[in-house]
Amino acid sequence: MENENCQVVLNKCSYGLYVVTSHLDGKINGQISDALMQVTACPPKVALSINKNELTHDYILKSRVFGVSVLEKKADLSIIKNFGFQTGRKINKFEKIKYVLGKTNSPLLIESIAATFEVEVFEDVDVGTHRLFIGDVIFAKMIENTEVLTYEYYRKRLKSEIHPNSPSYLEEKK
Amino acid sequence: MENENCQVVLNKCSYGLYVVTSHLDGKINGQISDALMQVTACPPKVALSINKNELTHDYILKSRVFGVSVLEKKADLSIIKNFGFQTGRKINKFEKIKYVLGKTNSPLLIESIAATFEVEVFEDVDVGTHRLFIGDVIFAKMIENTEVLTYEYYRKRLKSEIHPNSPSYLEEKK
Repeated sequence: MENENCQVVLNKCSYGLYVVTSHLDGKINGQISDALMQVTACPPKVALSINKNELTHDYILKSRVFGVSVLEKKADLSIIKNFGFQTGRKINKFEKIKYVLGKTNSPLLIESIAATFEVEVFEDVDVGTHRLFIGDVIFAKMIENTEVLTYEYYRKRLKSEIHPNSPSYLEEKK
Repeated sequence: MENENCQVVLNKCSYGLYVVTSHLDGKINGQISDALMQVTACPPKVALSINKNELTHDYILKSRVFGVSVLEKKADLSIIKNFGFQTGRKINKFEKIKYVLGKTNSPLLIESIAATFEVEVFEDVDVGTHRLFIGDVIFAKMIENTEVLTYEYYRKRLKSEIHPNSPSYLEEKK
């Protein structure tokens, strides 16, 4: 099957946009993700797919925890640029970002978000380019019960860029 | 952590709505799911979380394949009632539904959908009430490149019901 056509089809699936964060040895990092979903309600568990090249992947793999900040629809798009298009290996992504440290010590955003929650990983699955982390939601907080930013809205309405490390990345034809 | 509050927060995550189908021993079945996401782009892989009580779960667990029909925004809501609120153990859900059998022999809808794809499962993970099926997308087809139905739109705009077996089910306060 031709991969590009497949991705056009798979882009009909719907996602939110999240800042996924973690920590290791006193350092913090985070990145943009759309590949997150709830997998059970009682008790609440989620799954996250993250590219193995990402620094946040390495932090989660070792710390076994991550934080999720759910971006709101009217989020400042500089947040996506900050977390999605540069690497924490070269800069401190949190330098100009307001945040708190959660119960898992993962940083959680304060602005431009609808909600936050934190996850303790109990299983990870190697799925090739990415790793799937599955965990228990151990803390959750509504910040502002407002409309959230979806991948669809970000991509089509805002005509914005998608990072090649996204599971749903589709290369533009030249 | 109080479970109900957690679910209110987790409902800020975004999902699409899909008819997930499979087959076993010449029988076919399908159900509504929102718990589906792409986990890698190259090659394309997806993960699906499905309640262990569902007949479609049993079919996928044994046949190791499933089909996905991505509901469009203007989908006939009787499809959700048909696939989401009755069990294939008692009735044939496909009796009044137009469908084709895909390459995996999973039924794929023809009407009210934007796209279809089929998955060969390579791994499953027991996550408690649900099982997570992870697989390769082996066939994908765009039916109509139109707006899709999201969980958010279904739940809020259409004020519609959610089945208790959904990973994102939230019991209404009486």
